[in-house]
Amino acid sequence: MTDGPPLAEAVDDIADDIATMEIRGAATIARAAADAVAAQARETDADSPEAFRSSMRSAGRRLYDTRPTAVSLPNALRYTLGRMEGDDVETLRDSVLAAATAFTDRLDRAQRDLGRVGANRLRDGDTVMTHCHSTDALACVEHAVEQGKDISAIVKETRPRNQGHITATQLREMGVDVTLVVDSAARRYLDDADHVLVGADSIAADGGVVNKIGTSGLAVNARERGVPIMVAAQTIKLHPDTLTGHTVEIEMRDETEVIDDDDRAEIGEITVENPAFDVTPPRYVDAIVTESGQFPPESIVTLMRELFGESADRPWEEPTSGAAER
Amino acid sequence: MTDGPPLAEAVDDIADDIATMEIRGAATIARAAADAVAAQARETDADSPEAFRSSMRSAGRRLYDTRPTAVSLPNALRYTLGRMEGDDVETLRDSVLAAATAFTDRLDRAQRDLGRVGANRLRDGDTVMTHCHSTDALACVEHAVEQGKDISAIVKETRPRNQGHITATQLREMGVDVTLVVDSAARRYLDDADHVLVGADSIAADGGVVNKIGTSGLAVNARERGVPIMVAAQTIKLHPDTLTGHTVEIEMRDETEVIDDDDRAEIGEITVENPAFDVTPPRYVDAIVTESGQFPPESIVTLMRELFGESADRPWEEPTSGAAER
Amino acid sequence: MTDGPPLAEAVDDIADDIATMEIRGAATIARAAADAVAAQARETDADSPEAFRSSMRSAGRRLYDTRPTAVSLPNALRYTLGRMEGDDVETLRDSVLAAATAFTDRLDRAQRDLGRVGANRLRDGDTVMTHCHSTDALACVEHAVEQGKDISAIVKETRPRNQGHITATQLREMGVDVTLVVDSAARRYLDDADHVLVGADSIAADGGVVNKIGTSGLAVNARERGVPIMVAAQTIKLHPDTLTGHTVEIEMRDETEVIDDDDRAEIGEITVENPAFDVTPPRYVDAIVTESGQFPPESIVTLMRELFGESADRPWEEPTSGAAER
Amino acid sequence: MTDGPPLAEAVDDIADDIATMEIRGAATIARAAADAVAAQARETDADSPEAFRSSMRSAGRRLYDTRPTAVSLPNALRYTLGRMEGDDVETLRDSVLAAATAFTDRLDRAQRDLGRVGANRLRDGDTVMTHCHSTDALACVEHAVEQGKDISAIVKETRPRNQGHITATQLREMGVDVTLVVDSAARRYLDDADHVLVGADSIAADGGVVNKIGTSGLAVNARERGVPIMVAAQTIKLHPDTLTGHTVEIEMRDETEVIDDDDRAEIGEITVENPAFDVTPPRYVDAIVTESGQFPPESIVTLMRELFGESADRPWEEPTSGAAER
Amino acid sequence: MTDGPPLAEAVDDIADDIATMEIRGAATIARAAADAVAAQARETDADSPEAFRSSMRSAGRRLYDTRPTAVSLPNALRYTLGRMEGDDVETLRDSVLAAATAFTDRLDRAQRDLGRVGANRLRDGDTVMTHCHSTDALACVEHAVEQGKDISAIVKETRPRNQGHITATQLREMGVDVTLVVDSAARRYLDDADHVLVGADSIAADGGVVNKIGTSGLAVNARERGVPIMVAAQTIKLHPDTLTGHTVEIEMRDETEVIDDDDRAEIGEITVENPAFDVTPPRYVDAIVTESGQFPPESIVTLMRELFGESADRPWEEPTSGAAER
Amino acid sequence: MTDGPPLAEAVDDIADDIATMEIRGAATIARAAADAVAAQARETDADSPEAFRSSMRSAGRRLYDTRPTAVSLPNALRYTLGRMEGDDVETLRDSVLAAATAFTDRLDRAQRDLGRVGANRLRDGDTVMTHCHSTDALACVEHAVEQGKDISAIVKETRPRNQGHITATQLREMGVDVTLVVDSAARRYLDDADHVLVGADSIAADGGVVNKIGTSGLAVNARERGVPIMVAAQTIKLHPDTLTGHTVEIEMRDETEVIDDDDRAEIGEITVENPAFDVTPPRYVDAIVTESGQFPPESIVTLMRELFGESADRPWEEPTSGAAER
Repeated sequence: MTDGPPLAEAVDDIADDIATMEIRGAATIARAAADAVAAQARETDADSPEAFRSSMRSAGRRLYDTRPTAVSLPNALRYTLGRMEGDDVETLRDSVLAAATAFTDRLDRAQRDLGRVGANRLRDGDTVMTHCHSTDALACVEHAVEQGKDISAIVKETRPRNQGHITATQLREMGVDVTLVVDSAARRYLDDADHVLVGADSIAADGGVVNKIGTSGLAVNARERGVPIMVAAQTIKLHPDTLTGHTVEIEMRDETEVIDDDDRAEIGEITVENPAFDVTPPRYVDAIVTESGQFPPESIVTLMRELFGESADRPWEEPTSGAAER
Repeated sequence: MTDGPPLAEAVDDIADDIATMEIRGAATIARAAADAVAAQARETDADSPEAFRSSMRSAGRRLYDTRPTAVSLPNALRYTLGRMEGDDVETLRDSVLAAATAFTDRLDRAQRDLGRVGANRLRDGDTVMTHCHSTDALACVEHAVEQGKDISAIVKETRPRNQGHITATQLREMGVDVTLVVDSAARRYLDDADHVLVGADSIAADGGVVNKIGTSGLAVNARERGVPIMVAAQTIKLHPDTLTGHTVEIEMRDETEVIDDDDRAEIGEITVENPAFDVTPPRYVDAIVTESGQFPPESIVTLMRELFGESADRPWEEPTSGAAER
Repeated sequence: MTDGPPLAEAVDDIADDIATMEIRGAATIARAAADAVAAQARETDADSPEAFRSSMRSAGRRLYDTRPTAVSLPNALRYTLGRMEGDDVETLRDSVLAAATAFTDRLDRAQRDLGRVGANRLRDGDTVMTHCHSTDALACVEHAVEQGKDISAIVKETRPRNQGHITATQLREMGVDVTLVVDSAARRYLDDADHVLVGADSIAADGGVVNKIGTSGLAVNARERGVPIMVAAQTIKLHPDTLTGHTVEIEMRDETEVIDDDDRAEIGEITVENPAFDVTPPRYVDAIVTESGQFPPESIVTLMRELFGESADRPWEEPTSGAAER
Repeated sequence: MTDGPPLAEAVDDIADDIATMEIRGAATIARAAADAVAAQARETDADSPEAFRSSMRSAGRRLYDTRPTAVSLPNALRYTLGRMEGDDVETLRDSVLAAATAFTDRLDRAQRDLGRVGANRLRDGDTVMTHCHSTDALACVEHAVEQGKDISAIVKETRPRNQGHITATQLREMGVDVTLVVDSAARRYLDDADHVLVGADSIAADGGVVNKIGTSGLAVNARERGVPIMVAAQTIKLHPDTLTGHTVEIEMRDETEVIDDDDRAEIGEITVENPAFDVTPPRYVDAIVTESGQFPPESIVTLMRELFGESADRPWEEPTSGAAER
Repeated sequence: MTDGPPLAEAVDDIADDIATMEIRGAATIARAAADAVAAQARETDADSPEAFRSSMRSAGRRLYDTRPTAVSLPNALRYTLGRMEGDDVETLRDSVLAAATAFTDRLDRAQRDLGRVGANRLRDGDTVMTHCHSTDALACVEHAVEQGKDISAIVKETRPRNQGHITATQLREMGVDVTLVVDSAARRYLDDADHVLVGADSIAADGGVVNKIGTSGLAVNARERGVPIMVAAQTIKLHPDTLTGHTVEIEMRDETEVIDDDDRAEIGEITVENPAFDVTPPRYVDAIVTESGQFPPESIVTLMRELFGESADRPWEEPTSGAAER
Repeated sequence: MTDGPPLAEAVDDIADDIATMEIRGAATIARAAADAVAAQARETDADSPEAFRSSMRSAGRRLYDTRPTAVSLPNALRYTLGRMEGDDVETLRDSVLAAATAFTDRLDRAQRDLGRVGANRLRDGDTVMTHCHSTDALACVEHAVEQGKDISAIVKETRPRNQGHITATQLREMGVDVTLVVDSAARRYLDDADHVLVGADSIAADGGVVNKIGTSGLAVNARERGVPIMVAAQTIKLHPDTLTGHTVEIEMRDETEVIDDDDRAEIGEITVENPAFDVTPPRYVDAIVTESGQFPPESIVTLMRELFGESADRPWEEPTSGAAER
């Protein structure tokens, strides 16, 4: 496809699968990208360090171009290619393989490590209020229950798709006492909550948390009621484009999620807006819980740069063109 | 029933109809109570001022006891009986009849007068965000449209009963551009709104506004976003018991409004809480719009006392027993 | 002009002078209107109470129509005509004359009485920060100085017309230590101020204070810095139209106040916006100081109704037409 | 003493006792002043209405001058003398006697009426946090307990004089569960409190609440934690001088309350400041509970004027001199 | 005790002394732990790099287990063991010894370096308000005085143990003008303060500052009054467990600190709660001053990780078991 | 001048030019300092690594002493000298030359890179409000326009020197729709703005932004109105002295900028204060946009330390004296 060095078959296959969304979900994409990078590193038969580097960049571009807006894909590439170093082909190869292994090891442990961190913030007897459904957030409660803590939950139903029902079911299965309320009842029940606990779709360099529509309104109310807000998110959710100021595109979903055909017919000519997410400013979040520990949202940019490189780093681009474009 | 002076037949009939909720709705109850008081005044055949007063109080008690928590019933009694004055039977009778007429005249004009006041707060081109369905709030928009103003609306669906659909339909019929959103989307769309406009179930002496669950959370977010909050409420919504510190009982509604049987079965043993209303503190409300003009919520107590009397006044009680109980 | 009862010559003259702005300034207009009402009361030769009332209303309408947006004109009419009462012509006449006298007496004393109230809020050694130029505000400082208090002032220059220079001059003449700063320096110098002290162009029923552009931004900063905000305003500044929800029209002034022709030529095609006033919400004001004492802004509506009548009262309108219009 | 009409013996006696602080405490002074006014009304032998008025004013001045800063003394005089009306001596006398009786009746019932209002704001199972010792505040809890509500209390010790110990003792005697904490622990325990409940030394026209040092800091923290703040205060605590902008003088108490001689000796040359009170701005108070019902602090000025008259009214002053001084 | 490699005698001795609290105080424990690590490094006679590492880990575990909740102990271990690196025993040994030396050098200079940083934030003529007693906080004032700045202090007495008396004494000895006030007087005197200056018991990864009970309430009030809040804390106060979400256990102290036996007897059956510390959220702190410079509280986690390692690092644990436990 | 190793001629020349302000402006000074360091590295003829280091430090001191308060000068020295490393003279020389090249390369690209980051935060159709004139801020708009976005601007005139006129001119030349307003009109027009966009004079380690007087008041109002605040500043604006707590000296400018001689004569004896800058606390800033990406202000200290070294590092000082001074 590109006119560069030959790509490992695994790279092409994985790239295709990401493009066709055969492979999807932040963690699955991240792992597949790291696997593809490792395959390329193993199979590249380069006669010079520069040839090896060029081959790796080529694979990186092939993968990146499949879905440049997926939040975890560039993170995987930056982590693995960004740690490539050495003066000869073997050292380069080893560095990439080691980075790929470190990255996937990290992924293997991430949710559990994160759950332990989040659980440590919960005390015995605490009540959490949830919004939407997040396995990262649930991992915190699950670990707390395993620590022997008695946790209760107030679950917002989370219109329009009622993911609160899934959350309620899974919490109940952990043995947590669950109270289900409509989204509008949040402020009233915040007085009974010790924490707001939500996940994240992605997290921006300015500390903004992109999550299910309604999160920001809940966070503002939680601050007003004196209830701390905890966001549980693996580091692959850190949005690399935001380092350079890019804003996160908010998906607008179909109006049929909000209103069925009968109601539509009855109400007549109106507009229905159905954004999937909103952005919570960092001043309404107390802690972001990751597998690398907890962070105030204002310092998450430091973790982002530490794991995935400088804002201007795109290790899959040719150095010259990169500099030129800058 | 009570062992006091004979009651006019209309008093008994109306009392029964209020008790059985044949007569309901704040305005309908208020009007019926005023009619009953007028009937009693007309038909009482008293041989002394005190006998007349006693007869009127007796009617008042009969009516009050039917539904002491209905917000407009004691208001009607306080307004009509509280204006009874004179030294002879005819003067007393006339004063009551005049008060009853004034009260029902007021009711006749209230929504339209209120609508005009609220409309005056809206400027041409403004967008209002609504919550639930309130004919008082809609009267403001309707009058603004009649004033030739171009008004748009962002309508929250208002789970669990989706009264936003009714609001959307009625606004559309006025020629207003309507955008429907889920409740959780409020903060995002507040940046497009010039006013939050809601009604009230009742208003407390401390300036708290009791309205559909979700109003207080919306108001907190509107303040954070810099959007003024307007409450449209006829003065019969002013809750007389709150003058003496009573809190307003919040109705808890059936869980089936929140979750249907299938979901219930799937989720399993959880609690569902479904409060009908919440209380918005006065610091999150910019103006309460009534048929007597607009008021900051902190001064509504003055209007309440002016219209319906001192906090300790219950003109249907015997003076002695009243004093004793105090 | 109108086809009603004959008007006193003074009424016509004063009406003409208000219309042509021969008579202007809130206090001057108010006094002239009261004088005209008194003249009409004195000269009306009515043969029935109703004829007298009709004649007075006629004068009221003539005056009101000259400049319906002037804030003190309807206040004068409401105060004087609203206190007309009696069952015979002489009593009616006396009541109007008494009201007109009371109103002008009040005006005579208003600024001095107000100054005394405001002065009482200042302590020896206090520093006030001012914005624009207000004789009501200066009266407070002047009275404080007369009380023997040592007062200093930080004077904002108040672009674009630099009324702060007048304020600085007058304060200096009172013996007050004056520091002049640009408007943008306000937040920095608020740490040296004990009060923000401003006047008002008009005050709305919802507690909003309409004053020189920049007042609201100053008040927000003063709240953030912990400095109390005092507004000095005679009661003729209470804006009667706002009782019924009307918003106050903000005058847009000429761009040449902002930018001179040379700068204009150099900068080229841009828009210049030059609003004269802005609105400070009541939550950023600690006290409104009037000749009737001090009030939290949220209760000024009560004073407004007490002095100038119910929101729906326009005592110059024919009762029927009034009712019909309602 | 004054060269005016003769004073009733009771007036002189009571005036002396107030001056020597034989009579003290807000309620006791108020009652004594009303008794003295009544005595003067009964005993004045006037031959003209003006002579009667003059005699009453004379008594008023005699009483007022004894302790012009006592908050309840001018209230009693304004209430009783301000209701003096009539065209002949007997009507005048009757009006004063009726006002004096009404005032003392009110005093008799005030704390109990107030307690009932405050109790109505408390729900079964609530926890209140108290500061200092206030019989008005305790009356609210006591009435709630009588209503069968289970109330708990977190009692701040209230350095330097530990009035919290008295509060703790009296609450315990009512059967209330008491937790005693140091003042600095307030923020931590606010999460366990449903209300802050305090009394008031006096209340200003701008809604400021003067109460034991530490109240304002507690109120700011309560707002930050989302806990409502209730002030219990009989209307004799409304400070009449504040209507005209006067600030309330804060008593500075002896340093030995703060630090004993041994510590003093050890620490050496430092200053000890020991103010008795501070002022809580109205925006940090949710309701002022009085025997006339509950009020947002921003509307207490209306009650003040209703009970005790216009800001400029000092019914014990000669009309002329009053006008002149104005 | 453990079945691992032999420990240097100094390790055992120091471990025993920490366990028996012979050695205590954050700085003293930290230094002792670093000394013990150095002793073990010097004395370990290992025949392989892995044997050396294992021996060092063994010493680390021995020390850590003595008082795992002491805040500075794990910091010393992480700093010294976390910098161990090399491929042969001698390099490893040298790296540990260098780290131990660097750590103790740092400790030697920390308070003075920190004092200089804090002093730089103070301007000539400033007034600081203090709470409790902190040598780190006092070092800032001391250095400012040495810089020739005139500093005044408002000292809160800090019930229940009145550590403010010690602070007052030491400030006076530096030549600082001291005003002592009760804790409840803080808000009133904040208007005279330019800084709030406190120390810290420990600082959490989420930016929360654990300090003497009352600090958080003071900080909330300082923010409301516009006064900046500075926390002086050496980096050994950064709480390593909080990186993984652990909350800091708040010590509850004896009730006799709050209430003496006589008062206890008089008051009767009440609970006394006496927490030693509270947590101030980062949004109420302007700067944390350390020997490494000043930091906004939200970025202290970065310093924490830089000095003491990744959240998951516990360099005294066996790598395998560590991984397994994760 | 100093008695140390000989300095390259370029060092002396550049030092002189900085001292005489021949060379000025943050970027120009920074570049000149890096050039001087490179010249010294090239020309130093050292016979030992220590001699080379000493020579470089000597050049550093010479340069630093010319204008120690210039914000970018120590940054250039810290960047270039702080990266000096190696065990022999050639390696040391190469490291310094490489650092100097990297630093000037960075400077070359900084404004454009920064502009791209800032532009990414702007959406098509957005309106920015500006204060003063900043080429960094304008670069953001310029890049956004190049991205094809339609941007409008509300430009504050920025008294006293009206730099807003320059901003207006330059924005107009980019094809941006410009509305010019007086500074006091900011709050009113914030409702039409999507961003506040300003530059910075310097940025402190505690996240405070030093910028043209009026910035902090604008930021407080923007927060209150819900408008995000973006600061555009190259990293050479990060103020190195603030790492150790130093506050930034605010320049006081001549009063003639505020008031001309005629006005001065007319007003008489007053003080005019004309500070050039103020400090905006980090909690009122949403993002600082640099050539290294965007950062919440609370984490800018991390970037500062990463680029320019530890707070205590002054690589131009002799190690011994440095340690001693510490």
